[in-house]
Amino acid sequence: MPQTIYVLNGPNLNLLGTREPAIYGHATLADVERLCTETAASCGLSAVCRQSNHEGELIDWIHQARDEQAVGIVLNAGGYTHTSVALHDALVGVQIPAVEVHVSNVFARDSFRHHSFIAKAAFASLCGFGIDGYRLAILGLAAKIGTSAKA
Amino acid sequence: MPQTIYVLNGPNLNLLGTREPAIYGHATLADVERLCTETAASCGLSAVCRQSNHEGELIDWIHQARDEQAVGIVLNAGGYTHTSVALHDALVGVQIPAVEVHVSNVFARDSFRHHSFIAKAAFASLCGFGIDGYRLAILGLAAKIGTSAKA
Amino acid sequence: MPQTIYVLNGPNLNLLGTREPAIYGHATLADVERLCTETAASCGLSAVCRQSNHEGELIDWIHQARDEQAVGIVLNAGGYTHTSVALHDALVGVQIPAVEVHVSNVFARDSFRHHSFIAKAAFASLCGFGIDGYRLAILGLAAKIGTSAKA
Amino acid sequence: MPQTIYVLNGPNLNLLGTREPAIYGHATLADVERLCTETAASCGLSAVCRQSNHEGELIDWIHQARDEQAVGIVLNAGGYTHTSVALHDALVGVQIPAVEVHVSNVFARDSFRHHSFIAKAAFASLCGFGIDGYRLAILGLAAKIGTSAKA
Amino acid sequence: MPQTIYVLNGPNLNLLGTREPAIYGHATLADVERLCTETAASCGLSAVCRQSNHEGELIDWIHQARDEQAVGIVLNAGGYTHTSVALHDALVGVQIPAVEVHVSNVFARDSFRHHSFIAKAAFASLCGFGIDGYRLAILGLAAKIGTSAKA
Amino acid sequence: MPQTIYVLNGPNLNLLGTREPAIYGHATLADVERLCTETAASCGLSAVCRQSNHEGELIDWIHQARDEQAVGIVLNAGGYTHTSVALHDALVGVQIPAVEVHVSNVFARDSFRHHSFIAKAAFASLCGFGIDGYRLAILGLAAKIGTSAKA
Amino acid sequence: MPQTIYVLNGPNLNLLGTREPAIYGHATLADVERLCTETAASCGLSAVCRQSNHEGELIDWIHQARDEQAVGIVLNAGGYTHTSVALHDALVGVQIPAVEVHVSNVFARDSFRHHSFIAKAAFASLCGFGIDGYRLAILGLAAKIGTSAKA
Amino acid sequence: MPQTIYVLNGPNLNLLGTREPAIYGHATLADVERLCTETAASCGLSAVCRQSNHEGELIDWIHQARDEQAVGIVLNAGGYTHTSVALHDALVGVQIPAVEVHVSNVFARDSFRHHSFIAKAAFASLCGFGIDGYRLAILGLAAKIGTSAKA
Amino acid sequence: MPQTIYVLNGPNLNLLGTREPAIYGHATLADVERLCTETAASCGLSAVCRQSNHEGELIDWIHQARDEQAVGIVLNAGGYTHTSVALHDALVGVQIPAVEVHVSNVFARDSFRHHSFIAKAAFASLCGFGIDGYRLAILGLAAKIGTSAKA
Amino acid sequence: MPQTIYVLNGPNLNLLGTREPAIYGHATLADVERLCTETAASCGLSAVCRQSNHEGELIDWIHQARDEQAVGIVLNAGGYTHTSVALHDALVGVQIPAVEVHVSNVFARDSFRHHSFIAKAAFASLCGFGIDGYRLAILGLAAKIGTSAKA
Amino acid sequence: MPQTIYVLNGPNLNLLGTREPAIYGHATLADVERLCTETAASCGLSAVCRQSNHEGELIDWIHQARDEQAVGIVLNAGGYTHTSVALHDALVGVQIPAVEVHVSNVFARDSFRHHSFIAKAAFASLCGFGIDGYRLAILGLAAKIGTSAKA
Amino acid sequence: MPQTIYVLNGPNLNLLGTREPAIYGHATLADVERLCTETAASCGLSAVCRQSNHEGELIDWIHQARDEQAVGIVLNAGGYTHTSVALHDALVGVQIPAVEVHVSNVFARDSFRHHSFIAKAAFASLCGFGIDGYRLAILGLAAKIGTSAKA
Repeated sequence: MPQTIYVLNGPNLNLLGTREPAIYGHATLADVERLCTETAASCGLSAVCRQSNHEGELIDWIHQARDEQAVGIVLNAGGYTHTSVALHDALVGVQIPAVEVHVSNVFARDSFRHHSFIAKAAFASLCGFGIDGYRLAILGLAAKIGTSAKA
Repeated sequence: MPQTIYVLNGPNLNLLGTREPAIYGHATLADVERLCTETAASCGLSAVCRQSNHEGELIDWIHQARDEQAVGIVLNAGGYTHTSVALHDALVGVQIPAVEVHVSNVFARDSFRHHSFIAKAAFASLCGFGIDGYRLAILGLAAKIGTSAKA
Repeated sequence: MPQTIYVLNGPNLNLLGTREPAIYGHATLADVERLCTETAASCGLSAVCRQSNHEGELIDWIHQARDEQAVGIVLNAGGYTHTSVALHDALVGVQIPAVEVHVSNVFARDSFRHHSFIAKAAFASLCGFGIDGYRLAILGLAAKIGTSAKA
Repeated sequence: MPQTIYVLNGPNLNLLGTREPAIYGHATLADVERLCTETAASCGLSAVCRQSNHEGELIDWIHQARDEQAVGIVLNAGGYTHTSVALHDALVGVQIPAVEVHVSNVFARDSFRHHSFIAKAAFASLCGFGIDGYRLAILGLAAKIGTSAKA
Repeated sequence: MPQTIYVLNGPNLNLLGTREPAIYGHATLADVERLCTETAASCGLSAVCRQSNHEGELIDWIHQARDEQAVGIVLNAGGYTHTSVALHDALVGVQIPAVEVHVSNVFARDSFRHHSFIAKAAFASLCGFGIDGYRLAILGLAAKIGTSAKA
Repeated sequence: MPQTIYVLNGPNLNLLGTREPAIYGHATLADVERLCTETAASCGLSAVCRQSNHEGELIDWIHQARDEQAVGIVLNAGGYTHTSVALHDALVGVQIPAVEVHVSNVFARDSFRHHSFIAKAAFASLCGFGIDGYRLAILGLAAKIGTSAKA
Repeated sequence: MPQTIYVLNGPNLNLLGTREPAIYGHATLADVERLCTETAASCGLSAVCRQSNHEGELIDWIHQARDEQAVGIVLNAGGYTHTSVALHDALVGVQIPAVEVHVSNVFARDSFRHHSFIAKAAFASLCGFGIDGYRLAILGLAAKIGTSAKA
Repeated sequence: MPQTIYVLNGPNLNLLGTREPAIYGHATLADVERLCTETAASCGLSAVCRQSNHEGELIDWIHQARDEQAVGIVLNAGGYTHTSVALHDALVGVQIPAVEVHVSNVFARDSFRHHSFIAKAAFASLCGFGIDGYRLAILGLAAKIGTSAKA
Repeated sequence: MPQTIYVLNGPNLNLLGTREPAIYGHATLADVERLCTETAASCGLSAVCRQSNHEGELIDWIHQARDEQAVGIVLNAGGYTHTSVALHDALVGVQIPAVEVHVSNVFARDSFRHHSFIAKAAFASLCGFGIDGYRLAILGLAAKIGTSAKA
Repeated sequence: MPQTIYVLNGPNLNLLGTREPAIYGHATLADVERLCTETAASCGLSAVCRQSNHEGELIDWIHQARDEQAVGIVLNAGGYTHTSVALHDALVGVQIPAVEVHVSNVFARDSFRHHSFIAKAAFASLCGFGIDGYRLAILGLAAKIGTSAKA
Repeated sequence: MPQTIYVLNGPNLNLLGTREPAIYGHATLADVERLCTETAASCGLSAVCRQSNHEGELIDWIHQARDEQAVGIVLNAGGYTHTSVALHDALVGVQIPAVEVHVSNVFARDSFRHHSFIAKAAFASLCGFGIDGYRLAILGLAAKIGTSAKA
Repeated sequence: MPQTIYVLNGPNLNLLGTREPAIYGHATLADVERLCTETAASCGLSAVCRQSNHEGELIDWIHQARDEQAVGIVLNAGGYTHTSVALHDALVGVQIPAVEVHVSNVFARDSFRHHSFIAKAAFASLCGFGIDGYRLAILGLAAKIGTSAKA
């Protein structure tokens, strides 16, 4: 039975494909989740995909990932990225390897998007690849898990 | 059938009329919602009024406003005004004309109330008129919608 | 005989209608003053409308408003909004209820426009409604005066 | 019938005993709530203990504390401590004496943990005593209530 | 024929005696000017007293002080104190010994009143003595002029 | 023979009971020291109580606490709290568990009182409980010593 | 008939030649205006030269430049350079190509002279060439006008 | 028997007359104390003059001023001016009218000398008059005491 | 003939495998370049790999990438990441899609590593994956090029 | 034999004419150098023109300018302008009059371009004139040299 | 008879050898003073060694150094380094060449240790050499004195 | 055969003896290198002395120091001190004990010289001793090496 990873999307990512397509592209959240499921499968992993606009629900799911012995987390925390100490603490608390993803290049946008509480608690972070970033994050996470497994 | 606007109130506004009356006055949330419904009606609009202490629920409702083809949003985000990138992104994401309202004059209070993520995403902002601010916001929103409709 | 309010416009507002119409629209200062006069009249008030590019002249007029027992001030201080302690002190000094108005949404523009010395001294502030903001400001001011009169 | 106090724990405190034990110790949330119940009882008080990862739910409970005529609140707001104006406003809104608690010494950790919106709205604050801090907070709260009762 | 000093008062000081008496006291500008004239006379000096709400007019008068060979300037620049590089440059430009005066204790008020461009260009500064500060400033200026005269 | 703790009070705490009673209450330093002695005794500890307005003397006493094998320190450093690296270094240097106490809620006062060098060097900190805070600090310190003793 | 440019000098520049000659040199304002007139003539332009210590008057003249179809502005705003949003807005409002000039090297002086609101609104800026900077500014402005004319 | 005022000088003021005479002049501390005694006498007051390099000793003396029913304090806190919350608290604690004095114009020197904790706690402040500032401070203090006495 | 990408490594990356292995791992620069060559080949691309400790040489190579019609750049600018406006300008100047790579998680290290001039000029950025980050960067770059090619 | 000036261009200026033409125009570096040579000749000067992307090489050339007794330097340091203390020190070290040039108006671009280490060390600075700025810089430099020669 | 230097150690340096040996090493204050005496002797100087935890006492000794015609001062001000304007002023006041010493590398520790008021007033500063730093400081001071003597 | 140390001098230090002699003295780089060679020899060490204006070359040499098994580095990074993360990383990367040297007292100069990236990566730092600082640095380095050798 494959190991599980959690792919968590935060606020407004349910709007993907309709929200500001010049920045976020035309793929929908369903497209993203399909891409994640497929990429995970190609790495021998099973992906649990969830989206919420509620900070507390994202924290609940991170805790649940630990309860269900998930081996990795891919997190796009949307606007909570820049303000949520609580999400930071949740990631540090569960001690599961996590990768931060952003669809757009946050560093080329508003200055309030340049700081991330998630990046500090994740082992890796990427942004700007569009939805392809989710694929790269899972590939990188899988490599990390493999490496750790061997270590 | 009249066009719909959403009037959304954020955290602690359910306490209106009982909380710090020297700052917020004696009118209750029910009074505010009645005023909004009447003002909207006088402009040929229908007002959907909601209040929540949950940031995520406010975001959900902003998304729902789009799904239900609301033509405007009046938002008093309370304490989330000053900290919520996610609400900012929700407003920008749905592309519905929005007006920010505050009952008190936020600029004459604590310095942490001087910055607003909502103001940046709304087309207009007002504060300090007490609950009369909701009436003015709806009048201004109606004028804006009328103008845009003609444009 | 109707009570008087002062509608004061600061630097560059004489350019309204010609200056950066994408930001400020096509209405002229004369249009604004006509709108103010009419709105005031509809509230049983008489509006004295003045514009100056001189900070000192705006201060003089605020003092004069007190001498002439004006019951309210609507002030768009233009670029002095962000830098004038002296205008702030004038408003505080005369103790006449004042509303700050800006045609554009100052919070969506340069960061040096995000701080206002006027907002702190006025009882209310609004921006982003275009010239319709003057109408809303007078309506709100009239309501305030009425309330205070009863109190 | 004893007076009631609310003991509210915020995000990630459900992980107590498993999360970063070097910082937070080995006691669980159940241990904390038992300690609180016993300490409250020793002061002739009844403790209502709740934990949530949702900012909005914590605000709801603070409002509910007022509705149920609680005489005090002990609040460990976890990561929301440092970012939540809304929780600050809730405490100020209900006007119930509150004590802020942190298990770890927040001042010896990341600089983003040095500022608290809760401390400003509570009458007292303590940190660094481990879970014993909850006991001290209730003892201090009981003394405060007694003093106020007499005053 | 006595040497001349200029006593210049800036914006809103014409309101003295009526503006915020808790802060500024009940003496009027006329009282201040009478006090200055008398104090100057007691030091063998003649005082030219002027007040303007216009920054440019204050600058003009500082230049005029030089043209008329004034031997000292007492300047209360009001709200321009905190924002006017131009007044700073005027004082530096004319090279006449100047004393800065404030009626209230600016350091115990808003933080934006803690910085003064005038203080840097004057040789001395005082605040908080009420209108008696003008007397002290002239006494100190007279002593300075006497000292310089002998040097 | 009981173990000893030091209770050190810094500048102006000799004024307790007379200084700003609205903030600090009516109990005197003698009351505080009696409370500390009694609380310590109830925990099987002996309290050495000292007060000084001299930063250096407080440092001397912290060193002396080590020489006399004190097992804990309760320190209210008054105004030195916010400015004294030297006191911070003294606490770190002697490696005796310390608790920081403040009578008032420092976080609800001037912003220059929000930073503490002591908090960083103590294992725990509390404020806002009035003089009852000394009792709580000793109870917490006793629990800590007990725990450490067993560990 | 030659095209017109405006050469506007701000506060204290009437003191040129007498004010701090180590910084500003010995040439007077009359010398500067003569140099400007001659340089303009050599480029086939007519120069209107004005000086005022009043911020509002400088704004009036910038507006007047537009009314009189001036093709360029050379502006030395003196101390208003660093503080005047209103002058910035005036330049942006009239949409006439402008060059900022300073006699001294502002970057080698007080740090409050390092920021310019004028530079942002002008197309070009220069400083440090002494009064020769006016000549260079007009040469550069003439070249710019020529280029634009051809474009 | 005359009322008493305290004239307190802080660190390094014992060096007056020898330390950096270009900044501080040639008068010695003995000269200053003689001037203070004489000025006080001329106002019907008796001056107690003290100097210490110890922050704690200055605090002790401020407390002692209260014990001895002094009616005013003149304080030149030297380098402690900019760093001592404890001295600020001492002045606030004893509630005796105080005037801050500095020999040099602190605003024209290092930026770390621009902030004063003393100014906030004193009712008035002056600097830059050389040692004549002590005379002016006592004159102003005497006027203040007289005014208060009558009030 | 395959399209070319440039893989540029900046200062100290020649030390890979020997420098701080706890942070940077045990793979050498040769390992990285082999991984890049292979990954590029698997995407039908040819990789030109270069390393320099010289900022200017990295700029030269970015220019050369354009001259040789490279279709993408992978850049790990090492310590120049945080300080080099010149590298930022080079990337913007050549208009070749670039990905920023860091071996370690820069956001969990010194705060001076949290700002990147490169991220702003690249279309995407990743960090924390160890040397596997180079593989992910090339995969992401190849996907981007393919997308753009089709667009 | 004519006196020599150095015209030094820094990083990315070799891209002139091809890089971001909306900002930098269509003229190439060769055009710039031809313009400089001609302008210098018209002033009786000989221009040595160099460009490098290497900060160290620019420093070497500034030193060489002294060795070859150059009488002036025109420096466009590109991206090093904002970050290079070393270039600042080089200019100060050789004591040759220098003018800073920028093709674009740096004050209307990214805020990290608003500070210049070069401006502080040069005697004059200009920007925003396009490549015509080089001509103006040489004219201004020639005038300066002439003035100094006479002095 | 040899010339005298003062070696002054500030707060907590009496703990040397026992305090945080990982940072400060195992040598005691007695060891340091012996090393200083010997090094001074080897340079033909006599060392007066003193330690105090009192800021005021350190100031007193600096004054005394002047009274006793000491030719140099070696000062490790411990925690006062970062906060004492008064010590800075004392060194500047006595005009004796001084060297600042720190045992540990302050720049690799807490950021509040990166600023020194002493460094600004001393002619030289060193840190990080352990107690050997005292030897180097005296060697450097001796060389300086020798040089000055000859000059 | 003696152990080797590297003495590396950065930008503009080739100008020593000619550049700003009031700050840097009259000794040349050759004098410095001779002093270093002699001091090293007196400690039984061999000194390799190099100077470059190129940041990259300094990094190359630091790497080379490791390749050649140097036991210590003395580095005066000149203007790169304040801006070079890359040099910091090079020192940390090679793990050779390093001492930072500055000829002048950087803390008494421009504020941009107060921060050093080198100090953080070196074990010790000194400044202000003129060229004698190189001698002291080598003596201190030799002592450090000796100590480490024994440890």
